[in-house]
Amino acid sequence: MIAVLKSGTTPEQTAHLVDWLKHMDLDVHISEGQEITILGLIGDTSKVDIELLSSLEIVETVKRVSEPFKQANRKFNPNSSVITVGNAKIGNGHFAMIAGPCSVESEEQIIQVATAVKEAGADILRGGAFKPRTSPYAFQGMKDKGIQLLVEAKKATGLPIITEIMNIKTLDLFEDVDIIQVGARNMQNFDLLQELGKTHKPILLKRGLANTLQELLMSAEYIMSEGNENIILCERGIRTYETYTRNTLDLSAIPVLHELSHLPVVVDPSHATGKAALVPPMALAAAAAGADGIMVEVHNNPACALCDGPQSLTPDQFAKLNRKVQVIREAAQ
Amino acid sequence: MIAVLKSGTTPEQTAHLVDWLKHMDLDVHISEGQEITILGLIGDTSKVDIELLSSLEIVETVKRVSEPFKQANRKFNPNSSVITVGNAKIGNGHFAMIAGPCSVESEEQIIQVATAVKEAGADILRGGAFKPRTSPYAFQGMKDKGIQLLVEAKKATGLPIITEIMNIKTLDLFEDVDIIQVGARNMQNFDLLQELGKTHKPILLKRGLANTLQELLMSAEYIMSEGNENIILCERGIRTYETYTRNTLDLSAIPVLHELSHLPVVVDPSHATGKAALVPPMALAAAAAGADGIMVEVHNNPACALCDGPQSLTPDQFAKLNRKVQVIREAAQ
Amino acid sequence: MIAVLKSGTTPEQTAHLVDWLKHMDLDVHISEGQEITILGLIGDTSKVDIELLSSLEIVETVKRVSEPFKQANRKFNPNSSVITVGNAKIGNGHFAMIAGPCSVESEEQIIQVATAVKEAGADILRGGAFKPRTSPYAFQGMKDKGIQLLVEAKKATGLPIITEIMNIKTLDLFEDVDIIQVGARNMQNFDLLQELGKTHKPILLKRGLANTLQELLMSAEYIMSEGNENIILCERGIRTYETYTRNTLDLSAIPVLHELSHLPVVVDPSHATGKAALVPPMALAAAAAGADGIMVEVHNNPACALCDGPQSLTPDQFAKLNRKVQVIREAAQ
Amino acid sequence: MIAVLKSGTTPEQTAHLVDWLKHMDLDVHISEGQEITILGLIGDTSKVDIELLSSLEIVETVKRVSEPFKQANRKFNPNSSVITVGNAKIGNGHFAMIAGPCSVESEEQIIQVATAVKEAGADILRGGAFKPRTSPYAFQGMKDKGIQLLVEAKKATGLPIITEIMNIKTLDLFEDVDIIQVGARNMQNFDLLQELGKTHKPILLKRGLANTLQELLMSAEYIMSEGNENIILCERGIRTYETYTRNTLDLSAIPVLHELSHLPVVVDPSHATGKAALVPPMALAAAAAGADGIMVEVHNNPACALCDGPQSLTPDQFAKLNRKVQVIREAAQ
Repeated sequence: MIAVLKSGTTPEQTAHLVDWLKHMDLDVHISEGQEITILGLIGDTSKVDIELLSSLEIVETVKRVSEPFKQANRKFNPNSSVITVGNAKIGNGHFAMIAGPCSVESEEQIIQVATAVKEAGADILRGGAFKPRTSPYAFQGMKDKGIQLLVEAKKATGLPIITEIMNIKTLDLFEDVDIIQVGARNMQNFDLLQELGKTHKPILLKRGLANTLQELLMSAEYIMSEGNENIILCERGIRTYETYTRNTLDLSAIPVLHELSHLPVVVDPSHATGKAALVPPMALAAAAAGADGIMVEVHNNPACALCDGPQSLTPDQFAKLNRKVQVIREAAQ
Repeated sequence: MIAVLKSGTTPEQTAHLVDWLKHMDLDVHISEGQEITILGLIGDTSKVDIELLSSLEIVETVKRVSEPFKQANRKFNPNSSVITVGNAKIGNGHFAMIAGPCSVESEEQIIQVATAVKEAGADILRGGAFKPRTSPYAFQGMKDKGIQLLVEAKKATGLPIITEIMNIKTLDLFEDVDIIQVGARNMQNFDLLQELGKTHKPILLKRGLANTLQELLMSAEYIMSEGNENIILCERGIRTYETYTRNTLDLSAIPVLHELSHLPVVVDPSHATGKAALVPPMALAAAAAGADGIMVEVHNNPACALCDGPQSLTPDQFAKLNRKVQVIREAAQ
Repeated sequence: MIAVLKSGTTPEQTAHLVDWLKHMDLDVHISEGQEITILGLIGDTSKVDIELLSSLEIVETVKRVSEPFKQANRKFNPNSSVITVGNAKIGNGHFAMIAGPCSVESEEQIIQVATAVKEAGADILRGGAFKPRTSPYAFQGMKDKGIQLLVEAKKATGLPIITEIMNIKTLDLFEDVDIIQVGARNMQNFDLLQELGKTHKPILLKRGLANTLQELLMSAEYIMSEGNENIILCERGIRTYETYTRNTLDLSAIPVLHELSHLPVVVDPSHATGKAALVPPMALAAAAAGADGIMVEVHNNPACALCDGPQSLTPDQFAKLNRKVQVIREAAQ
Repeated sequence: MIAVLKSGTTPEQTAHLVDWLKHMDLDVHISEGQEITILGLIGDTSKVDIELLSSLEIVETVKRVSEPFKQANRKFNPNSSVITVGNAKIGNGHFAMIAGPCSVESEEQIIQVATAVKEAGADILRGGAFKPRTSPYAFQGMKDKGIQLLVEAKKATGLPIITEIMNIKTLDLFEDVDIIQVGARNMQNFDLLQELGKTHKPILLKRGLANTLQELLMSAEYIMSEGNENIILCERGIRTYETYTRNTLDLSAIPVLHELSHLPVVVDPSHATGKAALVPPMALAAAAAGADGIMVEVHNNPACALCDGPQSLTPDQFAKLNRKVQVIREAAQ
């Protein structure tokens, strides 16, 4: 970490600051120029509060030279991680198609969709049981009953299952769940992350609505620092001023996260765009950009006129998408 | 709620949609024009998933006519709410200055600051015990010990205290805390909000980094729908592309929230700007725009060169600010 | 266009508003419900100022049902446009690779790069002569001399050329330029757009830093409304809070623009990301998402250590990228 | 300027880079640490392309220590500037109320409004003659005729006038205009800025929709570098994800711009919020935060029900606002 001091800083002020930094077990290398003084901070700078340091009166600017994340950092773990659930693998060349309905609604529905997506080539079944909703009056999901039905669908098809957790108190219900999803709104629910770090379950961690890629990696670090290294990162769109799409899918997140971290990266084009017609092109784009998996919504009722518009694909559309995705993955390598 | 159907929608599709809407206990008023058909949905539309409805193939656009929040809505509760804690009142013409250190660090520190801000005119003492930090390696606060020290400072000065909760499991520790703060990162931690709704403690709810004002009110609604109506809303800056300030303080939130809701609105210029020099002008601006309170960081060590820069004011600066705030509040009415 | 009036609007106020709307040559269809009144505005609503109408005291909300752009609108021109320059075609299944240096620097440089990118498969040569720079003290390009050198490179290789215009006064200099580029900062320089509409040159119109896709189409409409229909739209990244990439490339713009408009869509991953390593994955993703062309920076000095990092690719990297792009385009269809 | 080189950079690469930097007439001070090498660049770094330098393969990070603007910089011009037009002064303790209609519509209208706002305490008359509109089909203003009517209103009332320029070709029409406004969409129309720099007219430069404060100052620098130092900066709201207000008014711009620059800062709450009810609280907040002037829309037809909602105030509302603004300005000092 580099701290540049303002011109006019007195030797006493500099000494004061250096003392304070040394108390944090840092070595401080001072380089005095004609107009400015540069401090090089050496040691474990991940503990330094960069916002506090930057805001000091005598400090002109501060720059991290090393990233503040360690266990998630590719520099320290050059080999890409692989997450294995059942027969599916994600990362380091292994690719997973994750598909299923937005919400689990009934046994019939989830078994039907699970069977259909398995036939169409899905590797993992998704389905919401606990649903984070902006309004307290909206349907909040089938909760524990929804998880039970997912487990039924897993038994029926052999597909590993993924579903979202919203409250650490419900962790026991996730015993037979293969991947626990942390939603965008909980990406910085640090207590939840730490508790999940004490389990050995694979965690799919979604990027928050307005979080930087570095913040996403720091949240992964929260989980990993407690011992759980089975993390899948997920890009699902960020909030911008554009209103035509629900969110703006940031596909550059894929190569950037691969450069910074060894963790696999999955993309969710369904929630990002909010429109079924945009899901296939964005899924293909994600595959071309090097994603390790794609998570899409597939619904179960191709006869229903109503369902033929939201962010969900029909099983047939999903099967067609899946075939293209595999070709593009090959071509992009 | 108004739903406009696309031209080319068949009568069967329209009938299908109307059926589905009626199953949600809504009355549907159909108005057919030459090119488009408009559905007026009457009844409790707060349960309708506007994103789902909008994304249907046959739906051109959907508009809410009534806001989806009820208990927080000024239309249904025209009188401004007042929150009372100890001798302090917030809302409906009552104004509170909330001041204190960023973090509780020691008994000596918190007692000193508490005494100093009380003398300078503060109504409520703030101080962080549980600290949400981007990095798992950063100082996470004194936790339960920090709350004990705040309670000591309350006994010593008589000031009511406010501090942040991060995990509902720690609720018991907040028994002697007067106002529980929900931080920006937890604004949509819906399970936490619902649990706080079952208490009777005043809650200061901070706007999330990238949340709209309507989402803030929906999160207030989560708490209120469980029975706790003692909510204070807090604007603390939103995330934009501008990097000079830590966040962009959105002061138009004050009159907008007052128009939409009866709940009091407090502004935190310290976290929003991240720089002590910007705190006084933004605090004065908040008072001029009609805020019901201001929350600022004040530190305890005016001798320390290092402290003379971050987002904290000295007690003297705070006293001077407080005097101006009171004059401007009067003038703005 | 639909306008919903507030409950409590008097019949006089409604009559007032209807009169005003009829003066704009609109038919107004009034539908009165129990609580609200809906006005359906029929006719040429592109002249209606939606912000003004929305802000009227008695108006609850306004929604456009038809898009405000006409000549750029696919509804009125269902067949995809094709832009032809020399041997290159863009749009409706035709794809163009546009490549060249950021700035024209010398005759030797531009001839070298032009020859190299032609061999590597480029269809069109790009190069900056007039450079928009944030600082008045930075290099502003070789200007007219730069254009002359581009024309030399065109003669030497047969490649059509594209370069940016910043001021309509310089239009004469663009006589031998095949495509005139309007940069992101001038996307809403309406006088420039109108003047370019009076020419017959193909125009590549870049999306502004913080402009919506609808605003981009309205700017295309400015050019088309003056008679020039040869427009190529270009996504080049938007400004968000993320700082790791220079801008956030919004690839969902491709399918959205194709849905709304018949105009071809090109993507510039070099300026969007600002990093050479991110250009190939984002170019492949753009091809997979259905782009009609890709514009990338290629430099001429593979021996130079310094050049080996910026947003430019070497000719070899470009050739490799080009081969993959062609395969992915096929697979994505 | 500080450039930090990556660990693993070879001595040849470093020498290469240092050579290149020295060719830009910079002194380079090399400080080699154990892991990283820091280059201190001394001299006129305003010419250095920071994006290019940052993107080099061997460069870890670059930081400006000095701001890239000079003539607009308070460091080099510590005394606050004062802009004088007629009897009005702006800056360094002088405050101006700028008021008038959104668009000039007729002689009767502009004379009426001008007379009314003068009585109510306005110092300068505003009114749009050339109107930048998103749609080519919308009313584009009365153009030259509008300017003539503004000049009539100036003669009738003695108020100096301000109106927007969109095209440098129309400069002759602005001979009797006292302040030329550059709109948000033209903030980075660098050719227009340079041409205006060759005049001696006061220029009111509005911040672009998504431009940083540093970019605003760099655009002021474009004008000043040509010789015109009569610049007034204007904050008018930035584009964010919030949709309740038209834009998000960034009032922290006031103290930040005052800290960085000696130029006066004016705030336009009418365009920022888009709603008349939000104009008074935001105008008072701007005054409390230290603005040097406020520009608001005032309309002329208090009898017209239609006008009673948009972003315009009635003359009476403006008079009342003006009185409060003056008291708050005093109190905030």
